Amino acid sequence: MPELRKDPITGRWVIIATDRAKRPSDFIRQPVPPASTHICPFDYGNEQKTPPEILAYRQNGGRDSPGWRIRVVPNKFPALGIEGDLNREGDGMFDKMNGVGAHEVIIETPEHALTLAEMPEHQIKEVLWAYKERICDLKRDTRFKYIMLFKNHGEAAGASLEHPHSQLIALPVVPKRVKEEVDGAQQFYSLKERCIYCDIIRQETVAGVRLVMQSERFTVIQPYAPRFPFETWILPKKHESHFEESDSSLLQDMAWVLRSTMRKIDKALERPAYNFMLHSAPVQEGPLPYYHWHVEIIPKLTRTAGFEWGTGFYINPTPPEESARFLRDAGLG
Amino acid sequence: MPELRKDPITGRWVIIATDRAKRPSDFIRQPVPPASTHICPFDYGNEQKTPPEILAYRQNGGRDSPGWRIRVVPNKFPALGIEGDLNREGDGMFDKMNGVGAHEVIIETPEHALTLAEMPEHQIKEVLWAYKERICDLKRDTRFKYIMLFKNHGEAAGASLEHPHSQLIALPVVPKRVKEEVDGAQQFYSLKERCIYCDIIRQETVAGVRLVMQSERFTVIQPYAPRFPFETWILPKKHESHFEESDSSLLQDMAWVLRSTMRKIDKALERPAYNFMLHSAPVQEGPLPYYHWHVEIIPKLTRTAGFEWGTGFYINPTPPEESARFLRDAGLG
Repeated sequence: MPELRKDPITGRWVIIATDRAKRPSDFIRQPVPPASTHICPFDYGNEQKTPPEILAYRQNGGRDSPGWRIRVVPNKFPALGIEGDLNREGDGMFDKMNGVGAHEVIIETPEHALTLAEMPEHQIKEVLWAYKERICDLKRDTRFKYIMLFKNHGEAAGASLEHPHSQLIALPVVPKRVKEEVDGAQQFYSLKERCIYCDIIRQETVAGVRLVMQSERFTVIQPYAPRFPFETWILPKKHESHFEESDSSLLQDMAWVLRSTMRKIDKALERPAYNFMLHSAPVQEGPLPYYHWHVEIIPKLTRTAGFEWGTGFYINPTPPEESARFLRDAGLG
Repeated sequence: MPELRKDPITGRWVIIATDRAKRPSDFIRQPVPPASTHICPFDYGNEQKTPPEILAYRQNGGRDSPGWRIRVVPNKFPALGIEGDLNREGDGMFDKMNGVGAHEVIIETPEHALTLAEMPEHQIKEVLWAYKERICDLKRDTRFKYIMLFKNHGEAAGASLEHPHSQLIALPVVPKRVKEEVDGAQQFYSLKERCIYCDIIRQETVAGVRLVMQSERFTVIQPYAPRFPFETWILPKKHESHFEESDSSLLQDMAWVLRSTMRKIDKALERPAYNFMLHSAPVQEGPLPYYHWHVEIIPKLTRTAGFEWGTGFYINPTPPEESARFLRDAGLG
């Protein structure tokens, strides 16, 4: 008998297949192919092919020229425009506003063919530091209510360029799904006076069945009611609502745990395409006792179809207890 | 400047690209290939390869044998189990219950290679009638709170078999996204004492810019704030909350409008993969003055990536006014 499980934060039910659970080898996996050598706007020497850089970490004093280790540029085809006011207005019964926001690309390394699992730890730490710097800078613009940091790896996950990069979109409203998560956490807090994520970390650490690994300061789990097989959450052990408040030593440990998690995923699932999302509190809010920032990683193993689009109900063919075991058993490579 | 638009029912914001709007030819389209001739469990003569039929329309008096026009069978690999009680229980801080529900397949025709756009109208009408019959039968089981009817066409849309078929899943809870839609409509009703969908039909009929076509009893539009390019809604002009209350003449007209819409989509987008969802009111509710059943069709043209998964915010590269124009201009083939 399959199981219906409820995500304790959002209240979303999912269907977890328990008989005939799918193992890694049951998924039609299309490993992300090694990067090709086509001309790439993110390679050294092609700095003029992107809009001028907003931020770069480099030894020399150049600008929009080689020598950088990390480079942040506006997206050449931005989803939102940076200038102007919202100008909220009606259109008969409908509501609209200007698409004001920021859309930036974080080029994680000059090396075209590297992946997050292969990058040296110090490089990943610098990437995380760039995330922090960009969020801190953008949140000073009070038009922006939420900043979403994400990474699409592999074509199946929606990546259009293979060079290692992440993206950031700053939005003038707090998106519905984020609000749902924050509101759910707040409801739990008003009932229990505890952070629900802190409770989850405690319960999962004791139970162990959905635990993937731990570092000094992070816990990696398969959540109780995951929408997707091998959905992975990385949570800081110490309560903090905003990622951008992280200090250097936390990001150092995060670099290690992120790299290790990606190595396990690459090993268990043969270098799958994936989406990586940083879930952090709305940027104009002060520290929140009830929200806990974290990372969610979704390896791309299934297709979302009519049932899911129509209901928001997900059918997950792999219980998280099974996927946790596969990931625990996969070494660090 | 892109536009942010709000879906009036659910309150979901979407980003609509207005410069450089994508035209049909800009999408990487992979037309669903003509069906192959592999052995198929849904073909005549293979009736023993599926579980025994629940319903069939046929001339002769047979059962699980050739001669049928439409055949409904339990899914061989059901997402939910039909027997047993919910047995709601806790698991520490988490909540679960038994995955009780029904999962059925509606085999729409014995002809392996036909599509919805090509099927004769009377055949489509019988398919719709089979939907109605199955929903009416299943809703007598009061364990089922919601019945989702959907169709995945083409591998990219999640179809695993190419023989024309739809699916039905009966759920023991009303899914979150459905509740959101129903609650949003109810909120509007409590403010205005009018059905929001009836208002949308009126406004769109007058404005015309997002109108695709009309039949005697249905209106086909591109919604104001669509998540996906060429997202299409088919709404009955007369208010009715439950699809299964439709009479024969309404389903007759629906068969024509559904076929015509699919022909336009096939023509404008070169036979794309798509998801088809029937949005109807929760089955245990009486007639609702505020909810209006309808069909949503999503051609599979884009990939859902990290930004969308993380925020529930969608970036739609084609304004619905443009896609409506392309679909209006595409003849009925």
